[in-house]
Amino acid sequence: MALDQSIMVAKKIQGMNESATIKMAQKARDLAAKGVKVISLTLGEPDFDTPQYIKDKATEGLALGHTKYTPVPGTMELRSAICSKLKSENGLIYEPSQIVVSNGAKQTIMNIFQSILDPGDEVVIYAPYWVSYYEQVKFCDALPVVIKAGIEQDFKATAAQLDDAISPRTRAVIFSSPCNPTGSVFTKEELQEIADIVKKHDNLIVISDEIYEYINFKGEHVSIAQLPGMQEVTAIVNGFSKGFAMTGWRLGYMAGPQWLASACTKVQGQVTSGANSFGQYAAAYAITADKSETKSMVTAFHKRRDLMISLFKEIPGIKVNNPDGAFYLFPDVSSYFGKSNGSNTIKNADDFSEMLLEEAHVGSVSGSAFGNDDCIRLSYAASEEDLKKAANQIKETLSKYK
Amino acid sequence: MALDQSIMVAKKIQGMNESATIKMAQKARDLAAKGVKVISLTLGEPDFDTPQYIKDKATEGLALGHTKYTPVPGTMELRSAICSKLKSENGLIYEPSQIVVSNGAKQTIMNIFQSILDPGDEVVIYAPYWVSYYEQVKFCDALPVVIKAGIEQDFKATAAQLDDAISPRTRAVIFSSPCNPTGSVFTKEELQEIADIVKKHDNLIVISDEIYEYINFKGEHVSIAQLPGMQEVTAIVNGFSKGFAMTGWRLGYMAGPQWLASACTKVQGQVTSGANSFGQYAAAYAITADKSETKSMVTAFHKRRDLMISLFKEIPGIKVNNPDGAFYLFPDVSSYFGKSNGSNTIKNADDFSEMLLEEAHVGSVSGSAFGNDDCIRLSYAASEEDLKKAANQIKETLSKYK
Repeated sequence: MALDQSIMVAKKIQGMNESATIKMAQKARDLAAKGVKVISLTLGEPDFDTPQYIKDKATEGLALGHTKYTPVPGTMELRSAICSKLKSENGLIYEPSQIVVSNGAKQTIMNIFQSILDPGDEVVIYAPYWVSYYEQVKFCDALPVVIKAGIEQDFKATAAQLDDAISPRTRAVIFSSPCNPTGSVFTKEELQEIADIVKKHDNLIVISDEIYEYINFKGEHVSIAQLPGMQEVTAIVNGFSKGFAMTGWRLGYMAGPQWLASACTKVQGQVTSGANSFGQYAAAYAITADKSETKSMVTAFHKRRDLMISLFKEIPGIKVNNPDGAFYLFPDVSSYFGKSNGSNTIKNADDFSEMLLEEAHVGSVSGSAFGNDDCIRLSYAASEEDLKKAANQIKETLSKYK
Repeated sequence: MALDQSIMVAKKIQGMNESATIKMAQKARDLAAKGVKVISLTLGEPDFDTPQYIKDKATEGLALGHTKYTPVPGTMELRSAICSKLKSENGLIYEPSQIVVSNGAKQTIMNIFQSILDPGDEVVIYAPYWVSYYEQVKFCDALPVVIKAGIEQDFKATAAQLDDAISPRTRAVIFSSPCNPTGSVFTKEELQEIADIVKKHDNLIVISDEIYEYINFKGEHVSIAQLPGMQEVTAIVNGFSKGFAMTGWRLGYMAGPQWLASACTKVQGQVTSGANSFGQYAAAYAITADKSETKSMVTAFHKRRDLMISLFKEIPGIKVNNPDGAFYLFPDVSSYFGKSNGSNTIKNADDFSEMLLEEAHVGSVSGSAFGNDDCIRLSYAASEEDLKKAANQIKETLSKYK
């Protein structure tokens, strides 16, 4: 009855990387547990609590007995509310049957990949990318094809790069806008360039991750699905985690063509079935209710974004861009590669991030996790006081590196 | 920009069957929507609401700000509470690191399959089986190997059948006890026979689905993990849906060897991350609190079980066994195959189930969905009044078939 783990654990899982963001968050917690005061800027989570009016609705849902299995793609009430939102806020008409509600947007994306990817199919991923895109594509035995852009391009790969990356096996192009990890936002013109290339090809869809839709400092959100002819080849990914500070509730959704919604429902029906019932009840209310609390959060993030830029611009050797959305700064720290403080030499972004934790006691995530080896990700979903302290500690630590 | 669905939808998904239980529930709803009074005995869900003390804890969790991402395998509080339960109720010692909390037990099982199955691996499935086992194994590109038992064996395949079914590629054996769909419960002696065979083999684990643990009318629950030497090769699957009437909350868990918990955490980290945060807060309380409400529900199910047996024993040509747990009756209806009411001839269990819906207005699920072509599944998670009505309507309808 011996168990050989090299036989027992599936090959694919043996080769799977642990999420770098989760790993760094854990390291920060471990150091904190030793008594070190760590400022963790690692996680992609608003520091605000869920607004009270949404919590109240969950309690109401419980009282009303919304404690039973829901349909796999979500309650009709929530899917109808999502359709209303897409119509009034985005000018997009969907039927409830085109919506699939999942246990978080992560599952939404996995559902789409599992619905469309056969082994050997390809997905073009804009880098810097959200960590899970890459691992999820591999999980489906498909090939991630990464197109990269550095800070000099505002982290946005060009239409020409996209064109070059598409092959007959490409089934999807995926990006987030506003972007995790860079905060960059594609303009309408840039989205039109992407659309023009996608429309040249058959059997290719865009997966448009719009989870940071509301956290946008430059104006109105634009979805690529709004551009002429694009709705039928676009899967919009969105959810409640970021705009409503509902990360722990686990509610994401997909809006897309009917055939894709049907396939995603099949996949989800085998993996998890429907999402939390009274959470859906509250979400159906939240998505069509007054969004003043969301706006207050966005105002706070905007203020902190400006603070972060001014703080990090003052640190010699660190390059920052001007992120228009989300709640991340993605500074290029490559000018430090090769530098030493006498005992430690920084070779790459992983070393830099590790050094920040050990010496400046600031938790960050290495850009290598996001497909960029020159940068680190700093979340500013933290108090202004902590952000100032973090910048000071980083500045002081770096002054020792020559 | 044409989309060819035969290319766009992954081959595996094109070949995937919709869940038969969900499909029949939908048909029953469709008929009801036409104004027909349908008694639906299709779904595997207690008809009780979640007990108030558990709902109150969820509200408390919300108030305390448990609205954030939890660790992928669940909060330490919930995993510790599950360990306490396993120790005090089952005499099994686990560390919290050996527990993985998921969005329902369905995901728990999928996590395990995805953790251990390479393409071409095999899983022995006891039939009648829960529908998802079979589809999930196929989803992992592995082979379901089914061992069957009819009503004359109380739906329990023998140890000899298991022995014959195991090959060098077999990585797991899976069954539920109490069983969905049959209500059968393996005795300690029967579990020992299974254990003796499993222990003869290397690289083979038991997946013991114990989601109906509390709904057991014959006495104390026995887990195969309690038998000598079995804990290290057993993955216990359990959750909150059935014993606590928390189906809509989506909370299941796995307790197993450390290597398997680690692999399941990796898988879940890519698919969904952690489960609902305030649901976990409430579940941590529920699992170690007084279980008198659970006992009341079980008492009600026990009474209905007795009622169901007496009602269906009176219907000519229907064979019933004496299910010791869960909330299903799984009558053998094969004596009706070939019979006709003049306009409709029943060829198999699918026809029988369809006929019950159309003519007796009772929703059931064909046994074919569970790997048994002679039976149908009737859930008695319904009022006694409805159960009596259903039996009468079935009896009357069947009297016309000769």
